[in-house]
Amino acid sequence: MQLIKAEIIAIGDELLYGQIMDTNSHWISQELDLVGVKVVRKTTVGDNRTDILTAFAEAEKRADLILITGGLGPTQDDLTKPLLAEYFGCGVVEFPEAVAAVTAFFQKRGREITPLNVLQGHLPSCCTYVPNEVGTAPGMWFEQNGAYWMSMPGVPHEMKKLMKDFVLPKLPEIFELPVIYHRVVKTVGIGESWLADLIRDWENALPEHIKLAYLPSLGQVRLRLTAFGNDKAKLASEVAEQIALVMPRIASYVYGYDEESLESAIGNLLKKSGKTLALAESCSGGYISHLVTSIAGSSAYFNGSVVPYHNQFKENILGVKAETLASHGAVSEETVREMSSGVRSLFGSDIGLASSGIAGPDGGTEEKPVGTVWIACAGAGFVETKKLQLSQDRLLNIQLTGVAVLNLLRICLNQDNK
Amino acid sequence: MQLIKAEIIAIGDELLYGQIMDTNSHWISQELDLVGVKVVRKTTVGDNRTDILTAFAEAEKRADLILITGGLGPTQDDLTKPLLAEYFGCGVVEFPEAVAAVTAFFQKRGREITPLNVLQGHLPSCCTYVPNEVGTAPGMWFEQNGAYWMSMPGVPHEMKKLMKDFVLPKLPEIFELPVIYHRVVKTVGIGESWLADLIRDWENALPEHIKLAYLPSLGQVRLRLTAFGNDKAKLASEVAEQIALVMPRIASYVYGYDEESLESAIGNLLKKSGKTLALAESCSGGYISHLVTSIAGSSAYFNGSVVPYHNQFKENILGVKAETLASHGAVSEETVREMSSGVRSLFGSDIGLASSGIAGPDGGTEEKPVGTVWIACAGAGFVETKKLQLSQDRLLNIQLTGVAVLNLLRICLNQDNK
Repeated sequence: MQLIKAEIIAIGDELLYGQIMDTNSHWISQELDLVGVKVVRKTTVGDNRTDILTAFAEAEKRADLILITGGLGPTQDDLTKPLLAEYFGCGVVEFPEAVAAVTAFFQKRGREITPLNVLQGHLPSCCTYVPNEVGTAPGMWFEQNGAYWMSMPGVPHEMKKLMKDFVLPKLPEIFELPVIYHRVVKTVGIGESWLADLIRDWENALPEHIKLAYLPSLGQVRLRLTAFGNDKAKLASEVAEQIALVMPRIASYVYGYDEESLESAIGNLLKKSGKTLALAESCSGGYISHLVTSIAGSSAYFNGSVVPYHNQFKENILGVKAETLASHGAVSEETVREMSSGVRSLFGSDIGLASSGIAGPDGGTEEKPVGTVWIACAGAGFVETKKLQLSQDRLLNIQLTGVAVLNLLRICLNQDNK
Repeated sequence: MQLIKAEIIAIGDELLYGQIMDTNSHWISQELDLVGVKVVRKTTVGDNRTDILTAFAEAEKRADLILITGGLGPTQDDLTKPLLAEYFGCGVVEFPEAVAAVTAFFQKRGREITPLNVLQGHLPSCCTYVPNEVGTAPGMWFEQNGAYWMSMPGVPHEMKKLMKDFVLPKLPEIFELPVIYHRVVKTVGIGESWLADLIRDWENALPEHIKLAYLPSLGQVRLRLTAFGNDKAKLASEVAEQIALVMPRIASYVYGYDEESLESAIGNLLKKSGKTLALAESCSGGYISHLVTSIAGSSAYFNGSVVPYHNQFKENILGVKAETLASHGAVSEETVREMSSGVRSLFGSDIGLASSGIAGPDGGTEEKPVGTVWIACAGAGFVETKKLQLSQDRLLNIQLTGVAVLNLLRICLNQDNK
């Protein structure tokens, strides 16, 4: 089987000047890796005719698949479309279907379409028009000069949708892809090196054709098993066997597999147990509610939340006692206990969660430095609490509090279900 | 003055497979931009002899300065050092000073040095050894084939230290650097093409040495003005003049400049006016509270928020009338009016904001399809409302609602301050 080689080209002065981080190329390379396409080069060039044409010519020499992002806006500094037409020697013509789509995009939003936007429906005649349902710049697919080319907007969610809906499904049609099977085990509440210590001899005994990677992210570690072979079903069962082997050691940290997020796993646990949830967020400021409600269908188990950003609201709205706040302070085990119970009553929910801490950069004391956070989970007849000692960084503290609160909920729900 | 052109080459399979995000190239391009060196290309290649040598040869053709990160580890898959020696036709020899430094590095940490690590002090004879005080792989500086080359480790903090201590101070010695001045005008509430229509003749009349770029992101467009010349103060005043010229047309959309975020601009407006804020978030589910509280010091103006995810809580906690909900529904102008006023009373704040909509993917009807959102801003004696018609995507709807609510607040505060 031949190796399929890809090159990713990102276009835009703003990427070269460092005003925007190119997250697109990173995401695309992850997706191509998953399906066994080898990225051999990533290139970033500016909004400059010669540089873009040179990048096309170089990419064509080494890649079977060339994925291009950016440079598709309606304004004059966006060159990708005319240069693709020039490079392939075809004119830019009206694609009525594309003009209709961009017109409908504006109509749907009750906005007047401009002549510039109409031109977004004019494309190189040698391309296949690929509708962009979430933006105004269409995708363009080319089969030219011995390679496959796809041009996509630089806006990440538009690019991702075109990749998922069009490019990724297209790959097995045009290439003979190798057989790769991936399975990701998602853990929370344990650091990478502790996890590695826990499973080292299992890891060392993995068969040659199954590889393990540790992929740490905020408060979580993903274990990715990748198996290479020629029979997907066989690879899947071999990987399942290996996971069954290691599971007894790590089960208490595992919340899900593959694309499942912690907030989605929590949602499934709540739905399964028929329980409802309410949140009292002080230092996390609404972030955990946002995580929970980012899941479609969360209204089935999420009742609501309160962000009481001053003590008086912890008292008035959640019923935390004035004396608790006076003697222990807002960042204390006692306060999060009362907050979690209070919000549970307010929303008549089965579970109440609470956070209170010093997110920083100001507000720390010797006794309670920046990064000190108390969290609680209250249910029928119990309140579980936990103290966290996090970082100096405000946003990181908010995010890590979110992971810790959802993990505490997961632990409480699992205990409750026993 | 001649333009100084740079290329950044990142080396490593892990970057191509998407296992590590290349933040180095982004950081380097920001630093070079600040000193007026123009990055013309960023290239990422894997740990492969041919690909690396090709990247060297291509970079040499277009750049005066070539900055290389990665591929300097002690193991065999790290190829940068031997390939630089091969490319420049010089042998790898022991640099006693470099061997001493790597030995001292291990001694200081109480660790035994391995033969592999000793070899990290062996370098191409044609390089200038650049000590790496925070790691074991030295920096290497070359003046070869008409260009300046610097090879640095891929570990971000090691690369940054070598850049700050050696490369950046070196640049004014070897190049006559141009002067570049950037200013970014941040707008919200107007699409890229409308903005372009509004300012086209101003844009076309810009002097040759001042360039304009449109940088759109979710619900916002940044206008970046870049001026080239040799006197920074003069450029700054020329750019300020141009901004003053265009401002009358766009002032109502402009919330800030350069690095300022919308949530930070809102915070400054609230602080300036001495007003406090509370939020009732239905479809946005806590996201706007998170944006507001992500700003350090937001407790000075943010009182708190409620996410009432079911009608009963809109009634019980926020005092929305049962008859309003019954006759107009939760997603209606009347409901967000009462929500915004209700949350303003609950938290005793000067301003109350509210959102209610159908984030999707379910819950849409013919009359109120997915993406229908009502938002409101209530203050002393007024309630402003607005209907949004957004997308099919849940997360996007949440994010766009956030931008629209903060923009409505901005407009209300600006009217109020008049």
